[in-house]
Amino acid sequence: MLEQLKQDVCDANLRLVTEGLVFQTWGNVSGVDREAGVLVIKPSGVNYDGMHAGQMVVVSLETGDVVEGDLNPSSDTPTHRALYNAWPTVGGIVHTHSLYSTAFAQAQRAIQPMGTTHADFCYGPVPCTRPLTPEEIQDEYEANTGHVIAETLQGVDPIQVPAIVVAEHGPFAWGINADKAVTQAATLEQVARMATETLRLAPDAGAMRDVLLDKHFLRKHGPGAYYGQK
Amino acid sequence: MLEQLKQDVCDANLRLVTEGLVFQTWGNVSGVDREAGVLVIKPSGVNYDGMHAGQMVVVSLETGDVVEGDLNPSSDTPTHRALYNAWPTVGGIVHTHSLYSTAFAQAQRAIQPMGTTHADFCYGPVPCTRPLTPEEIQDEYEANTGHVIAETLQGVDPIQVPAIVVAEHGPFAWGINADKAVTQAATLEQVARMATETLRLAPDAGAMRDVLLDKHFLRKHGPGAYYGQK
Amino acid sequence: MLEQLKQDVCDANLRLVTEGLVFQTWGNVSGVDREAGVLVIKPSGVNYDGMHAGQMVVVSLETGDVVEGDLNPSSDTPTHRALYNAWPTVGGIVHTHSLYSTAFAQAQRAIQPMGTTHADFCYGPVPCTRPLTPEEIQDEYEANTGHVIAETLQGVDPIQVPAIVVAEHGPFAWGINADKAVTQAATLEQVARMATETLRLAPDAGAMRDVLLDKHFLRKHGPGAYYGQK
Amino acid sequence: MLEQLKQDVCDANLRLVTEGLVFQTWGNVSGVDREAGVLVIKPSGVNYDGMHAGQMVVVSLETGDVVEGDLNPSSDTPTHRALYNAWPTVGGIVHTHSLYSTAFAQAQRAIQPMGTTHADFCYGPVPCTRPLTPEEIQDEYEANTGHVIAETLQGVDPIQVPAIVVAEHGPFAWGINADKAVTQAATLEQVARMATETLRLAPDAGAMRDVLLDKHFLRKHGPGAYYGQK
Repeated sequence: MLEQLKQDVCDANLRLVTEGLVFQTWGNVSGVDREAGVLVIKPSGVNYDGMHAGQMVVVSLETGDVVEGDLNPSSDTPTHRALYNAWPTVGGIVHTHSLYSTAFAQAQRAIQPMGTTHADFCYGPVPCTRPLTPEEIQDEYEANTGHVIAETLQGVDPIQVPAIVVAEHGPFAWGINADKAVTQAATLEQVARMATETLRLAPDAGAMRDVLLDKHFLRKHGPGAYYGQK
Repeated sequence: MLEQLKQDVCDANLRLVTEGLVFQTWGNVSGVDREAGVLVIKPSGVNYDGMHAGQMVVVSLETGDVVEGDLNPSSDTPTHRALYNAWPTVGGIVHTHSLYSTAFAQAQRAIQPMGTTHADFCYGPVPCTRPLTPEEIQDEYEANTGHVIAETLQGVDPIQVPAIVVAEHGPFAWGINADKAVTQAATLEQVARMATETLRLAPDAGAMRDVLLDKHFLRKHGPGAYYGQK
Repeated sequence: MLEQLKQDVCDANLRLVTEGLVFQTWGNVSGVDREAGVLVIKPSGVNYDGMHAGQMVVVSLETGDVVEGDLNPSSDTPTHRALYNAWPTVGGIVHTHSLYSTAFAQAQRAIQPMGTTHADFCYGPVPCTRPLTPEEIQDEYEANTGHVIAETLQGVDPIQVPAIVVAEHGPFAWGINADKAVTQAATLEQVARMATETLRLAPDAGAMRDVLLDKHFLRKHGPGAYYGQK
Repeated sequence: MLEQLKQDVCDANLRLVTEGLVFQTWGNVSGVDREAGVLVIKPSGVNYDGMHAGQMVVVSLETGDVVEGDLNPSSDTPTHRALYNAWPTVGGIVHTHSLYSTAFAQAQRAIQPMGTTHADFCYGPVPCTRPLTPEEIQDEYEANTGHVIAETLQGVDPIQVPAIVVAEHGPFAWGINADKAVTQAATLEQVARMATETLRLAPDAGAMRDVLLDKHFLRKHGPGAYYGQK
């Protein structure tokens, strides 16, 4: 079963390329096996060209130690681990430096829901974290990035708000598994671009009305959802 | 004959992808058979990869019931149906969340005709609907979307104004058949992007003069048209 | 020899597609044979897919009549003809609705030379014409478009200023032959986009200094040019 | 060994095309052989299509004379030569007119580090040179461009600040060899675009905090770097 997860995580990492979300080696996807108590993640700084499942690195959720694999795991592994430990329903996590989402992160702005495209994807704004303190940056930077993300989403169901932008840094997205997390990262980028273009036409545009946000999010994801097939 | 229409509607849906108008499964095209009293539309939430004519769903124009097909029709079917019932000359309808057109929808701005590219396509502004009321959203949302579009175009020939943006939502376009409707949706997106870039250079740019709008629209579409071949 | 020109003009028209300058059938290229007293141009409203040299239309420079060809020439033919008659050194002309150049046309702004990329291409601003008068639009619109372009370039060597944007309409570009004219149209689009992005960063940016404009234009095109090979 | 360098420089020039950094023949890459006292550079104004290693031109670092090769070297060769002579640790140099970097050059603005993407690449702002004086333009223009770049980086390690924008002109980037220099030029373009989009969302955005710049640059490039593999 871990072999399947390695393959899924490798496939999801390669999908970052086909979705146009990464430049060079920037970006990483992980998946989790809750029963085995491990996460599987891309190795650090390795090219996507020729990447294969055997290169994926297995890391303990409890200790953060490498359990299996010859390569160093992504330097962002402690961020992923912190989030899996904070969110029991999340099965896959993605980090990229995709263009429009990163612009919101650098501008330190949340992405307001401005229309139904956003509402179909995320139940409210895509939040922006507070900047990390100098102490959080200097010591355990990557784990603290995860803690600040979890802090920002305190009290929110991460499956309903599947993405965030980290101030001065870039986006993270997640879902029930690695493949779904990549879909969320790709949707986030599209929604961020759409918000940017909207702000160009209407600089004071804010959030859409809750009544329409509810309608769209819930017709797709709520208990009475009627979008898609059975 | 319905088999031909299913094929045409399937082809038109797949053209959304090659024209760069859709992301994931967002977007749908329908066509109508007035004699048979039905519309044919894409199923809801189905991938474009491997889509085939046999998946298209046939829906009664009069009752809205599914007449033929194993899958759920697009959740936007009641919008399409309302428009076919309002506009007897329209044969195909497209809905997308294409980037620049959706930005105008989210900004709740009409797209003013700023040059001959627009004038070759649409006889006046591409209008923006009013926002739906909370009541229109909560009950029969998709049908009401169609009613508000028809209300906005009251007194206008939909063949001369082949597209609209729905406030807080996105674009709809139409034409004499499904294929032509996709061409209009693609042209709308191009015109929307051109208007956005124009507003960046000239923030107060407004509509072009009527004399030039008339010249271009009518040399291509008027009774004395002299563009193209016989 | 006319067969060669038809082939060159057909190739140049097809290059509009590979250069990303056209959408649908918008855009046309012509070439001229001064000895034969004719121009050769794309037919009106014909798809680029499957276009071949035999479809090109031959038109008299003197009378504007079709001399050879089964299809209607581009509706913009009188514009091309007016320019060939005004400018004896020009051998090819292109008209497109390419995105960034058309935005300048719609904004009714000249494209100022803001850096050496522009200076390598055009010796001064790419001008914007005045709007045509209502009378010029209503009668002989296409020929008048050519006259207004020539009027705007009065006293300028069209080989040194190889492009213009027509107010409320779009760009024209030209060169010593049809292929070179397409290169100029593609360069214009790139320069227009670069100017747009510059204005985003520096809204008050104006023209570069003449000393640098001279240096770059003349090292490439002047009598003592030292760019490229012998 | 010079044959290998010619091949590397040719490959690096062709990579400019696949990275989307050049339009037409604009752009050039060189590499250096310090022991042989020469630089190898692309010929001037030659198409990338069919370019091969045998066309590369070998130029003396000391005299600037062509030592080997049948074609004229890039007209920007004196700029490359000035930089190799100023910077003993640099092994490859790239010049392009890539879109977003050139916009900063035309706007005469440095690119501030606004987030970790920038910090992973460059240890501080990407500077913008002062404009050349009229005298510097009129006499030995290309060599003076190199001198002004070196003057701007006075006291800075060029390996830590691997790129610059030259006012009214465009970007230069460099690295330990020609291939790495192209990677830096591509990263610069991505970072420039990201900064542009950030400024659109937050017009007053400035540099990120030094504590985070240090963390990211040094975890990747510092003595205790822990990014990537051993």
